[in-house]
This record gives sequence, C-alpha cells and structure tokens, in this order.
Amino acid sequence: MELERYVAGDWGTSRLRLSLCLGGRVLDTREGPGIGALSEPPAEVLARLTAGWREAHGTLPLVLCGMAGSRNGWRETPYLPCPVDVRSLHEHALRFEADGVPVAIAPGLSCRGRLGTPEVMRGEETQIAGALALHPDLACGRHLLCLPGTHTKWAWLEDGQVRDFLTALTGELFALLRDRSTLTRASGTAAQAGAGTPAADEDGFGRGLETAGGLGKASLLHALFSVRSRQLIEGRSHDWGLSYLSGLVIGADVHGAIPLFEAGGAVVLVADGALNQRYARALHREGIAASCLDGEQCALAGLRTLCRS
Amino acid sequence: MELERYVAGDWGTSRLRLSLCLGGRVLDTREGPGIGALSEPPAEVLARLTAGWREAHGTLPLVLCGMAGSRNGWRETPYLPCPVDVRSLHEHALRFEADGVPVAIAPGLSCRGRLGTPEVMRGEETQIAGALALHPDLACGRHLLCLPGTHTKWAWLEDGQVRDFLTALTGELFALLRDRSTLTRASGTAAQAGAGTPAADEDGFGRGLETAGGLGKASLLHALFSVRSRQLIEGRSHDWGLSYLSGLVIGADVHGAIPLFEAGGAVVLVADGALNQRYARALHREGIAASCLDGEQCALAGLRTLCRS
Repeated sequence: MELERYVAGDWGTSRLRLSLCLGGRVLDTREGPGIGALSEPPAEVLARLTAGWREAHGTLPLVLCGMAGSRNGWRETPYLPCPVDVRSLHEHALRFEADGVPVAIAPGLSCRGRLGTPEVMRGEETQIAGALALHPDLACGRHLLCLPGTHTKWAWLEDGQVRDFLTALTGELFALLRDRSTLTRASGTAAQAGAGTPAADEDGFGRGLETAGGLGKASLLHALFSVRSRQLIEGRSHDWGLSYLSGLVIGADVHGAIPLFEAGGAVVLVADGALNQRYARALHREGIAASCLDGEQCALAGLRTLCRS
Repeated sequence: MELERYVAGDWGTSRLRLSLCLGGRVLDTREGPGIGALSEPPAEVLARLTAGWREAHGTLPLVLCGMAGSRNGWRETPYLPCPVDVRSLHEHALRFEADGVPVAIAPGLSCRGRLGTPEVMRGEETQIAGALALHPDLACGRHLLCLPGTHTKWAWLEDGQVRDFLTALTGELFALLRDRSTLTRASGTAAQAGAGTPAADEDGFGRGLETAGGLGKASLLHALFSVRSRQLIEGRSHDWGLSYLSGLVIGADVHGAIPLFEAGGAVVLVADGALNQRYARALHREGIAASCLDGEQCALAGLRTLCRS
C-alpha cells in the first residue's frame, strides 16, 4: 500500500472529511455525514463520495481514522491498550479489501486514566502519530499533549509512547450549556458598550478564566450559575456571557488537568487556530507555555503513516 | 393580613403550586404553569385557579414566593442583600392589592458568593424562613443549609441570618447530560444482572460518589466521560450509567462545597425525601452528618410567615 495517491478520511461522529492526497499534498476534499447520522451503509457513502476521484485515477487506497472503527462504524477495530508507540500505529491498523479497494482503519487507544476510570480515544491517536511525523523532536522525552474539541483529550507522551490520557467533556458541555440551559437567557438589559465585539469577547473570556482559576477545591458546578447572575446583577450582555462561559469551562479544564499530570513544561496543543489560542491563553494564566499544531494537518500526516503496511 | 384562611403559592420557573391553607393546615391544592410558560397575565392565572376557593370562602389573602417576584414575573421584588435575618422576611415582602385581594410577594436574596461571583435566590429564602419557623433551634449558632434541586443552594446561616450562599447547577446539569449528551447513548451491551433495579442504582450512584470524591483538584469535566467509557469498556447498563452520572454530579457538588464553607458540623438538607437521601449519602461519604427537612413543608411554613404584616 505504498502507492503515492490515496484517499485519507477522518470520520467523526458528526462529520466525514475525505482528502485526495498525493504524498503529503492534498489535491481535493469532500465532506460527508458523520457516523452518527448515516442513512446508507458506510461503504456506499465512501463509494459515492470518491466516485469522481476513482474515475480520474482508478483504484485508490483508503486510510481512515475516528469512528469508522467504532462498534457502530464500518468495521470495529479493537482499542490498543496503552502504552502505545504511535510511530508503529500502522502495524495495528485493520486492513481489508472492499470492492477491490485496499482499506486501512486506525485502531483506537484505551487506558486506565488518572482518575481510575477507563479511557478511550478514536481519531486522536492518528493526530498524535501525525504530530510525531511532522515534529520528530516530540518523540524524545516527555510531553503533555492537549487536543481540544468536543471531547478534549490530554495525552502523556514519553519517548514516542502514549502512556495514558484523559478526556474532558469541555466542548460538548459548553455547547449544551450555550444552547439548552437557563444560563444564557437572563440578559434583559441593554447591550453594553463593546458587547458582541472582539473586545467584549476577550473580556468575558478572561473573566471566565479568572473565576475558573480561583475554584480551588470548588467544582465548576459552583461557578456556572455566575454566567446568569453576572447578566442579572452586573448587566452583562448575552455575548459577554457566552465568552465568559467559554472561559469558565476551558479554564476549569486546564486548571484541573495540569495538577493531574504534574506538568511543568510547555503543553503541545493540537486543534484549529482559534481553539488553540483559547487554550494557550488558559495555560498562560496557569503559568504554562504552549506550542500550537494544526489539528487537521496532524490528522492528515497521521493518516499518511497508515499507508505504510 | 392576620386572617386564618389564605392562599399560599410557590411559583417557580416551571411550576406553580397553590395551597388553600387554614393556619398551618393545607385544605386543598392546585397546580398551574410556571412563570416561564405563561400564556396569560399572572393575575388571570391566579384568579382562574382560585375561583372555586373564593366562591366558597370569599376574599382570600395571597402570599407568594419564587419567580413571581422576578423581572419576568408578576411584580418585580428587589433582592435583599445579605446578611438577611429571614425571621423578618415578612417586613420586606412587596404588598399590594389586586382586584381587592391583598397580595404579598417574598423578596429574593443576593450576595457576593465565596467564589467572588454575584449570587441570587428566589424562593429558597422562604423555605429557609420556614425551616426556622418549624425548627427554632436553627436560629442559634451556625448552620450550613443545603437546598438540593435544579439549582442547588448552599446557605450559611448564623444566628438566624443568611450570611452568604452559593448556587450549584447540579440538577440542571444532570438533566442536560441525561437527556441531551453523548454520555448515555453508548450502551450496546446486554443488560447486566440487576440493571435497572434499585440494587444497580445503588451501586452506580455509589461508584459515581467514589469517583467524584477522588477528583482532588481535577474538574468534574474530567470525570464525566467515564459515564460513557464505563458502558463501553466495563459493559455497564444504561440505567447504571444514569445512576453513576447522578453520583458524579451530586458527589462533585458536595465534595466541592464542603471545603468552601469549611463545614464540619451536620448539614441541614431541605428537599423532597429521595433527593435528601442522595445528598445525605454524598455527605456521609465526606464524613459529614445530615439532617433532613421536607422542602414543601418548609416552603409552606415560610409562606405562612409572610401573612404577618
């Protein structure tokens, strides 16, 4: 499967992103439905979306990561128990042929987390493999990686091995509280000067980080109501409240994760630019430096390593 | 307004509960829509629901607490800044006549909470006044009260005065995560022996408390994903997962609130029996005793104190 041209797919719960690649270059992309929203079998979704590419280039090997390998995905790929050297992730890919197309699906990882609970990931292991492929220096020594998202993953990397990791529900909780809670419906006051502008956003986010940083042994549960009360009592705008809520949950994530990992050095962030920026600011508040990698670039680089058989 | 027969109403966001009272006795009850779901003016809702009682008994004074006094309620009643002696809550009620009916609406309370954020309550101050009316010993010394619910309130009572309080989003967060999140959709495995039974419930809730009790400086955010992973990896049932989630959020609430209030003595719980039991178990795990008061009885006793003019 050492062909130059291949299709790389990151298949999440809510989105499929396919790329036609030539070596490390992306020639074209297609978007499709997530594993959680399929109305036809996975193989048919892929055949439909890649038809044009196959017409132009013939048979194209397919490498996939994410929920494609989950129980409700295309073909279940077992979790690899940590520690796992992600530089040899390709050795554990599930390989098969579907209508003459060679397919590789990345395995997920599992571990017992630092809170004594079971942990699983699907997709992030491929981003981590990609981060190591793009930045071989990460394979030396210890690094704390943070992959912010719906389910933020904190992963402890030691000499190229993922030793253990932890999931924070940060993105999902933020979206639920933003869209479905009583917290953001309190603002009946006139918008303040600057409300809805980047400046208001910066201020709200910063105040959220500040409150989260002062939680000590208190729970995020005890700070969330202030999203509402600051609108009611301090006259904050709806937009300010949303930025404040974002600061609270990201701040609580960072403030709680850093002591768990006893991390002192820089944290490597792997996400899109805006999310990396927010986490970098939260880390900075805790006195921790951050270096930022692009999440999509890492996913593509990781999928490319799966082409090795 | 020292009449013997009166109508007492606890008007929340999602429910109105009216009681026809004679002194301390409830003669009859009616349910109506919450302030958040009104399709007619508040006065008309009340006139409609109490029509039969007025036919039988003539004009009946009306005492209300909760969201009736909110900005979006019937008549806005200002928050009283803490410390507030709840034994004199009746002195601060908003009193007016509506169509010849004398009405009193309880004021809410406000304070700067222990996390430095603004705090407000509407309704719980009347339950606390009722707890003191029913148990005058609570007016001596210091007591930590906990009123579990959608927005759980922790209130520090000192010689009959509410000094300050704190809101935890416990009930609302549990309901959002139960009904709207990805956490409880993972169970594809056969139900275990005992799943869905009280025994499974007890076990799940206990394991949730245990995990929350071991959070240390980590955040509830870092434990929530285990609701899903314990189903995926440990084969736990959906019902077990829900009880575990309940244990996690109540455990995180209690585990975080106790150090904030530096509470050592017994906590006074004010809610319905089942919720009181869950909180009592969480407190017991932290080495704290609990005494339980019935939330509805306290609300009625508190509303009765508002009849004094």
